[in-house]
Amino acid sequence: MSFKGVDDLVHMVLSRIMISENSDHQIIVLKEKDGDRNFPIVIGIQEAWAIDRAVKNIPTPRPLTHDLMGNIINGLDIGVERITINDLKNNTFYATIALKQNGSKFEIDARPSDAIVLATQMKSEIFVSRKVLDEVCKIDSM
Amino acid sequence: MSFKGVDDLVHMVLSRIMISENSDHQIIVLKEKDGDRNFPIVIGIQEAWAIDRAVKNIPTPRPLTHDLMGNIINGLDIGVERITINDLKNNTFYATIALKQNGSKFEIDARPSDAIVLATQMKSEIFVSRKVLDEVCKIDSM
Repeated sequence: MSFKGVDDLVHMVLSRIMISENSDHQIIVLKEKDGDRNFPIVIGIQEAWAIDRAVKNIPTPRPLTHDLMGNIINGLDIGVERITINDLKNNTFYATIALKQNGSKFEIDARPSDAIVLATQMKSEIFVSRKVLDEVCKIDSM
Repeated sequence: MSFKGVDDLVHMVLSRIMISENSDHQIIVLKEKDGDRNFPIVIGIQEAWAIDRAVKNIPTPRPLTHDLMGNIINGLDIGVERITINDLKNNTFYATIALKQNGSKFEIDARPSDAIVLATQMKSEIFVSRKVLDEVCKIDSM
């Protein structure tokens, strides 16, 4: 991996998906790849199911929206270089998706849930900005 | 428009979106552009909202999944040539999305709901195979 600002980013892995079908809000947990800090992100049920299916490699009889997005990305040979949780404002996380195609790079805003669905489908790496991780873990230990 | 099998396709327009927030199933109606035949498609609430937002050009504070898909397609200069409702089996409609990028064409399977979200976002044309339209309008008049 080499890209600008790498020191400001921390490599994370998806460590838990907690789906409660009776709730509107589902929880995923990201954990430092080379450390112990972790934090939860609240996401919607469609995104939680899509992540769960991608982790377990479960096909759907028909392409749901996230599958369609993945199929477009695969079909047009677009690479998902990484996704980054890059901001936290008013308890809401923000993310970007770094795409690459034919040598061109393109970064796009996304909700963390959609970004993590894509990262899981494409086996892309997940990063969080050090500032966001420091902030969320500070809040966590209060 | 010129593409293979054009005689087998009928040009449609989205004529109604019926959203009932208390129901799991929403209805959109496609109508012949140059005729009176029309038929409803049952879709999910997320897709109905996404179509409604696209029709009314309402931005969301954060990109939802369909917005993200549209942003990827726009950002990478991918053209949505048309979408086609191309099959009907066991009361379920099937669709394809015809994409174009750098002179290459690519066709991808989708649920009609997702395909119509994309067509509405991108102002692409909506077609239905004549066979499907004949079939669904025959059932309708029984």
